[in-house]
Amino acid sequence: MTLTNIRIVLINTSHPGNIGATARAMKTMGLAELYLVNPALFPHVRADEMASGALDVLGKAVVTDHLDDAISDCGLVMGASARSRTIPWPHLTPRQCAEKAILESSQTKIAILFGREQSGLTNEELHRCHFHVEIPSNPAYRSLNVAAAVQVIAYELYVGSLTPSTSVWDYDYAAAQDVEGFYIHLERILVALSFLKPEAPRQLMTRLRRLFNRARLDVMEVNILRGILNAIEKKM
Amino acid sequence: MTLTNIRIVLINTSHPGNIGATARAMKTMGLAELYLVNPALFPHVRADEMASGALDVLGKAVVTDHLDDAISDCGLVMGASARSRTIPWPHLTPRQCAEKAILESSQTKIAILFGREQSGLTNEELHRCHFHVEIPSNPAYRSLNVAAAVQVIAYELYVGSLTPSTSVWDYDYAAAQDVEGFYIHLERILVALSFLKPEAPRQLMTRLRRLFNRARLDVMEVNILRGILNAIEKKM
Repeated sequence: MTLTNIRIVLINTSHPGNIGATARAMKTMGLAELYLVNPALFPHVRADEMASGALDVLGKAVVTDHLDDAISDCGLVMGASARSRTIPWPHLTPRQCAEKAILESSQTKIAILFGREQSGLTNEELHRCHFHVEIPSNPAYRSLNVAAAVQVIAYELYVGSLTPSTSVWDYDYAAAQDVEGFYIHLERILVALSFLKPEAPRQLMTRLRRLFNRARLDVMEVNILRGILNAIEKKM
Repeated sequence: MTLTNIRIVLINTSHPGNIGATARAMKTMGLAELYLVNPALFPHVRADEMASGALDVLGKAVVTDHLDDAISDCGLVMGASARSRTIPWPHLTPRQCAEKAILESSQTKIAILFGREQSGLTNEELHRCHFHVEIPSNPAYRSLNVAAAVQVIAYELYVGSLTPSTSVWDYDYAAAQDVEGFYIHLERILVALSFLKPEAPRQLMTRLRRLFNRARLDVMEVNILRGILNAIEKKM
């Protein structure tokens, strides 16, 4: 399971119900490791109620006094943030956050931090993160409940874990200048073949550019295509 | 705004807190139209508390006695369902549900139904739906809180509404037999050019197939490519 190395960290949560709802959100999406930094009330009957069938996640939750103790063993730390900060920080969408977490989870432990109900994460806490994650939201009302925010991120993690990882490609993408060199060569050959009439080019090269750009040529493919053009030139 | 025609319908909700949390989840994602079919307790102070800054959504919520009154003006009805049913029904992921809703929202009103906390939607209610929507979840614990489920679907709707709709293409996809005809023609020309050696073909045609299949050729592009091959043939 790719999600076992991914930890949810709630910081200074005021309402125990939100801790329980977070545990439930986590368990529905296959996450099990919950850390609570300095919660106002925990354990608490309201947390148990809201956890519903995820009491096991609550029962294993680790309570710490300081953020350091919740992330010290993690090689990747990401923090949920709704606010744009004065110093720009590397920023991910929930989907990008999930891709990154799943990609790295075989190599390192990962923490995703969620802040206080009223004020989120402090600047100091955000500066402890490698990346900030922003859930897209209505500009007129961005205030997701903390457990709802965990649900969205956990959902993306779970969906991401179901998708087979992008297959490894055998060659690098071709550099733009090499692709451009191919287009110039192609155009010259099409003119020599009298297929492209320079006085009436219509949309021919535009259509061919759109086709090959859509495919995103790799290095080997550009070599093959240039090789074909050379072979045509030699025959003529 | 593409989301104004999309309505959330909660059926027989037991806990007023879940109604409030649903209103909040909706507003964070730009949804405003909430219908409540036969809620156990509404209005209720617990709903107001959980709605936080989304009291306006709660205030405009429409309460009905029957599902019919909540969906009668809707041309597309989708229902959240965790269970597989005896009669298979057309099924969508949350992302597919969002794509469909956004695509159709300019033409019709759309309802997305969420059932009871304990038992979800009844079979009869599910049979009123054009599609069922299933949120992927941990097989060992699929029980999302109803407001959390609304949050996930609303998140996909909002993210989908931010994405520019797929640009209209100018030509249809080429039929498989026409693309195959192009490959056969291409191979013949490459042999005639002595670029492809039938006794040592290596991976050449495989690589070219992978390239053009990746791009998904349209009808016009196949015509252009066949035209180029004809022009080469004529020159030789």
